[in-house]
Amino acid sequence: MKKILILVEDIYEDLELWYPKIRLEEAGIHVSVAGPAAGQIYKGKHGYPCKADIAFKDVVASQYEGVVVPGGYAPDKLRRFPEALKIIRELHSANKMIAFICHAGWLLISAHILKGKKVTSYIAIKDDMENAGAIWSDQPVVVDGNLISSRSPADLPVFAKAILETLQRSHKMKAS
Amino acid sequence: MKKILILVEDIYEDLELWYPKIRLEEAGIHVSVAGPAAGQIYKGKHGYPCKADIAFKDVVASQYEGVVVPGGYAPDKLRRFPEALKIIRELHSANKMIAFICHAGWLLISAHILKGKKVTSYIAIKDDMENAGAIWSDQPVVVDGNLISSRSPADLPVFAKAILETLQRSHKMKAS
Repeated sequence: MKKILILVEDIYEDLELWYPKIRLEEAGIHVSVAGPAAGQIYKGKHGYPCKADIAFKDVVASQYEGVVVPGGYAPDKLRRFPEALKIIRELHSANKMIAFICHAGWLLISAHILKGKKVTSYIAIKDDMENAGAIWSDQPVVVDGNLISSRSPADLPVFAKAILETLQRSHKMKAS
Repeated sequence: MKKILILVEDIYEDLELWYPKIRLEEAGIHVSVAGPAAGQIYKGKHGYPCKADIAFKDVVASQYEGVVVPGGYAPDKLRRFPEALKIIRELHSANKMIAFICHAGWLLISAHILKGKKVTSYIAIKDDMENAGAIWSDQPVVVDGNLISSRSPADLPVFAKAILETLQRSHKMKAS
């Protein structure tokens, strides 16, 4: 069974975490929520609680097919954890899926993996993304290899579709 | 293009509204949110805001393929609106899909359509459901003809699957 990580911290955008989480579960994929501490509850920007299943420090990145990083202001917190940055860098080195939405690009900036990559993000962090070397465009979803990005909760239907298509494609490539 | 209604009032369970809404949109289905007043914003149990696209009184039920009723405490409010009860009764008479989760069964009780129907719900309202003549069981999802019911947000993956399967089936039946 495929396993996907979702990263959580306080002030995560509620639907940007929960829609991909439940959507992946609906597709039969196991989702682990990783946060600063296992068993702790983090609160969404609008108040929805989310319990972390595992601590960043205990994540073995090679056990996962990819990661989803929700937006809100959580990414401003996530980027301060070396263990969270390590997860992103290890998955990226292994060409595993990294899906990020809204302000989540901040985490990828601090993981130093955006140079020359085509991305989108919430408009507010466009300058940060471009200053990190990314090629930014205003699209509902941008796919560049293993990187999938979207702008806001309104893009969740196409963001989820791109995530599922990418996972199916990488599954077929492995099988063939 | 298929059209589905979702009913909203204050204290709706955030994910029970938003997961089916975005999931249906992902599947190419148009979703209208109906509430007491068009353009008004209702607040979820955890705080997520949801704007109503249309007022109950302006809904023409025959234009929709079905309805999703989220839980939380919104159904306690929804059942007080004769126009909301009328929508449920008209869709039910036309054998259109009525999907309800958690405490949403309260609305169906007040629409007097549960006698002899197999259902589930949040455990708290089991007695209310049985007193209304429903045959209750503790299952993640129960489908009885046009009625689809689930217990809580944890059931959303199977609830959404049942909704999509029911809509596909009714579409095929019409086409054949």
